[in-house]
This record gives sequence, structure tokens and C-alpha cells, in this order.
Amino acid sequence: MKLFDAEWAPSPRRVRIFLAEKGIEVERVVVDIKNGEHLRPDFIAINPQRQMPALLLDDGTLIDDSFGICRYFEALQPEPPLFGSNPREIGLIESWLRRIEHDCFQAVAMSFRNKVSVFKDRGVSGQWPAIPQIPDMVERGRTMWAAFMDVLDRHLAGRDYIAGDGYSMADIAALVSIDFGIDTRLPDPRDGHPAIADWHVRVSARPSASA
Amino acid sequence: MKLFDAEWAPSPRRVRIFLAEKGIEVERVVVDIKNGEHLRPDFIAINPQRQMPALLLDDGTLIDDSFGICRYFEALQPEPPLFGSNPREIGLIESWLRRIEHDCFQAVAMSFRNKVSVFKDRGVSGQWPAIPQIPDMVERGRTMWAAFMDVLDRHLAGRDYIAGDGYSMADIAALVSIDFGIDTRLPDPRDGHPAIADWHVRVSARPSASA
Repeated sequence: MKLFDAEWAPSPRRVRIFLAEKGIEVERVVVDIKNGEHLRPDFIAINPQRQMPALLLDDGTLIDDSFGICRYFEALQPEPPLFGSNPREIGLIESWLRRIEHDCFQAVAMSFRNKVSVFKDRGVSGQWPAIPQIPDMVERGRTMWAAFMDVLDRHLAGRDYIAGDGYSMADIAALVSIDFGIDTRLPDPRDGHPAIADWHVRVSARPSASA
Repeated sequence: MKLFDAEWAPSPRRVRIFLAEKGIEVERVVVDIKNGEHLRPDFIAINPQRQMPALLLDDGTLIDDSFGICRYFEALQPEPPLFGSNPREIGLIESWLRRIEHDCFQAVAMSFRNKVSVFKDRGVSGQWPAIPQIPDMVERGRTMWAAFMDVLDRHLAGRDYIAGDGYSMADIAALVSIDFGIDTRLPDPRDGHPAIADWHVRVSARPSASA
């Protein structure tokens, strides 16, 4: 088994945090995306999607999505459970994961990819024909980011973690999305959102956060 | 337990198909979204997200996302498994679900919500401040839709179902997204994509497809 990993990018970080929480060690191959190593024919032959992370199993199967990789390991080693341990928790965690992905992570991605000149004609990540940047999407992303933070702050008031009875994949997904937004110069949501600020300290203090 | 359901909209259909495949009966409350019943205070008090589907559990917990609801029922009644039955299958199905959501369902949603006048200032579904429509996103959605169909058609060649060893949630998600795209006048992907056309006949013939 081999995990294709990359520095800085948000999706590989989800998997690294998840594996650190599980205490699972996997052979890693770090692909240098800043120098376009993921666009070279030898990597495209492994992963036509040209994205990290990707997990190559010993039978040749490629799992090419960060949530898919995490669920693979959750099924392989259920403890500690990070996607929930009873139907109610499992349903709530998945619902928050979908909301974090759509309302927060996609908001950051749309702000970033439609603004930065390196993504000219690559307005969406992955393998696509030319997709021109749309400058108005930068502002839409900022609006969604701000609105999501108000919702999350109200939700976290009086709670230690986002969904279910403890730390979960929902916290991992939110931490990665929020840090990615801060890195790409969206307004820091810890300002003016005390519950997010407390939660951010709590989840960032876990050793997994720097994995 | 009560399932808030709606006609025509794609996300409630995912849950209806899933429940039909499981043979699970749930009390349903049909909310008339065409007449704005989901925007009335009595429904917002139940679901501030103003979206269907939503599952209200007997303890008052609300699961407000279609995938969250399906995973709740998968945990409650594992047979027949629709999210996979071993780690490899579970990882592959989740990866395809993420791709179908991002590359196909969101492509349809962006084409539709940025075009139709009823969604003026509601460019994204859910509870948001005013989000102006962005006409250029209609074309981006069409580009993504066309490119995704080429990928899916190549993938389905020689396969009966999208991921894992049989019919799964990935087939449900793809069927719902594709039928939603066809309903909203995107180019019919069965034209020129023989593997998609065959698969569409196969999954549409299941009794669950009309649930």
C-alpha cells in the first residue's frame, strides 16, 4: 500500500490528520505539486485525476479521494471511530461533513481558484478541459465563508466538537477547510466568533493537527 | 421518526430510492416546495436550513442531509449494503460519491440556479444572505457536465454498476444527478455515451427508481 501525498494542499492534510488519530503508519510518496510533478505523465499514469491524496492498494486499486481513503481505513481499523459509532452519530457526522464540504471548503476553493493567476483556465481542480476563471465567484465564496462561520459559531457555542459525542472527521474537515481559508487570505473566522476560536485552539492542540 | 420529503427535487429522491432498496418504510411529510412551504416559519422552526430531505428522530435530533440520512439507515439496517461491504468497496464507493457530487451534481446545480429567474439572489441552495446569480456559471456547469459524462462513460464500459461489486449508493447518486440534469435541459448524456445509456436503462428498471 502506498499513499501519494502532497505538502500544503488541504485534501492530503485531511488524510494525514485522520491517520495520525488512528495511529496508522502508511508508506508515503510525496508528490511536488508546486513544481507540477502531479502533471507529469508518470504520475498521470497512476492517477488520471492528477490530484492528491491517492491511495494505491496492493491489488492495484486506486482510491483517489481523501474521504474515500479515510473511510477505507475506518473500515479496516474501526478504533477509534471517527465517522461515528451509532446510527444517530453516523448520520449527524455525515451531514456535517457534507455541509462543511459544500458551504465552507467549496467556498474557499471558489474564492481561491478564480482569483490566483496560476489557475488561469483551471477554475476547478481535477482533470478538465479549459475552465475559465470567473471573477464574480471570488466574492460569492467570501459571502458563503462569512455566512458559514456565523452558523458554525452558533452551533459550537456550548459544544467541544462539531458532531456526535467527541472529536470526529467533521472536526478534521472543518479544521482543514478553515486553515486553508486563512492561508488563502479569507477573513480569519476566529475574530468575532468566540466559539470557533475556542474550538480551533482545542483541535489544533492535538498532535494530529501537525501531521 | 418522520421524514420531510418533497416532490421533484433531487436530494429527497436519493433518500426515497435508498429506502426502497432497503425495504424500509418511514412516516413521510411531503412539503410543497413549489409553493414555498419550506420557507414558512413553522417549517423553518423544524429545519433552519429550509431544505429537504430532513429526518426528525424520536429524540428530537434532526438529520438534515440526504447522505447523512442514508448513512443513518445503513447503520441501522446494514442489509443490503449500499455503501459497500468491505474496506476496498467502501473506499471506492465513497470516492465515487464525492466525485458525482462535485463534478456532476454541483455542475447541474450551478447551471440551473444561476439561470432560472425564480432563484434571483438565491444562487446557492440553503439558508444564505443574498447570493446573486452569476450567468457565467451556467456555461461552466455545462462544461463540467459534458466532461464528467465522458469520464463516466469510459468508466462504465464493461461494468454493470459504478463502484464496488454491485448496485450501490454511487448508482443512486449518479441516477438522481443525471435525471436532474436532463430535467433541467442539460444535453442528454445517453446520446453518444453507450455505456451510460445501458447503465441508465439498468438502474431505471429497478422498482426503487420510481419511489
